[in-house]
Amino acid sequence: MTDAEQIRDLLQARADALHARDPLASVAVLADDVVSYDLAPPLAHAIGRTRDRSGLEQWYATWATPIVSEASDQHIEVSGDLALAYGLVHMTGAKTDGEVVDIWFRSTLGLRRIEGAWKIVHEHASTPFYMDGSYRAATDLRP
Amino acid sequence: MTDAEQIRDLLQARADALHARDPLASVAVLADDVVSYDLAPPLAHAIGRTRDRSGLEQWYATWATPIVSEASDQHIEVSGDLALAYGLVHMTGAKTDGEVVDIWFRSTLGLRRIEGAWKIVHEHASTPFYMDGSYRAATDLRP
Repeated sequence: MTDAEQIRDLLQARADALHARDPLASVAVLADDVVSYDLAPPLAHAIGRTRDRSGLEQWYATWATPIVSEASDQHIEVSGDLALAYGLVHMTGAKTDGEVVDIWFRSTLGLRRIEGAWKIVHEHASTPFYMDGSYRAATDLRP
Repeated sequence: MTDAEQIRDLLQARADALHARDPLASVAVLADDVVSYDLAPPLAHAIGRTRDRSGLEQWYATWATPIVSEASDQHIEVSGDLALAYGLVHMTGAKTDGEVVDIWFRSTLGLRRIEGAWKIVHEHASTPFYMDGSYRAATDLRP
């Protein structure tokens, strides 16, 4: 299996973990020293170090349905034990409060091969925001 | 000079180009096939391919002062001809309409060595957004 195929498998495992709202499987793809720039504040956090899944568990509990995430325009570049993967993600589902989520966001991942297995060492997920004075997150964009 | 030092020089050249509001110097650090996920919409754009600097020129013209950008917690990882650089950026200045900008955002860069010189092949800049129902971009966060 090529490196790119192994990384695609990892990304699929991650999407499956999100779909199943499985905190343990969600952190299994992360390196211990991962630095995460997530959709929600804070600016950065380091879930891998602590393996504290309580935030993730609380967030998963706010969903009434599986969380569907589909990657689009996925680029993967590999050199030795370092890889870069980026693309757009379409996330859909429904929250327990009735909110219907249908959002496209940008996902950039840095990966490192650690003891023979690829792990996510950095992740950056975001939407842009409108610079029309509203400072509204652009959660309604489509590719 | 090590790869990390060369990449730090490139990042400094980029900050200098922003400070000088110099469109030509700003795109000189980009690979032709760069895919950019910027603070502002759209989700993705490809300025490198076209070298169309008109958007950048228009944006620079909205600033009354130099644009100061200072990197913090900058991590650089290199393997062969691929590198990953990420950290927080503090951007300050004043717009022509009187708005004072003082924002921290996350910056992730993918770099490739092309014909002996490091170039940015992917960039991702963002703030998170508040998931309190407001969907407001979190432009007021501090590290």
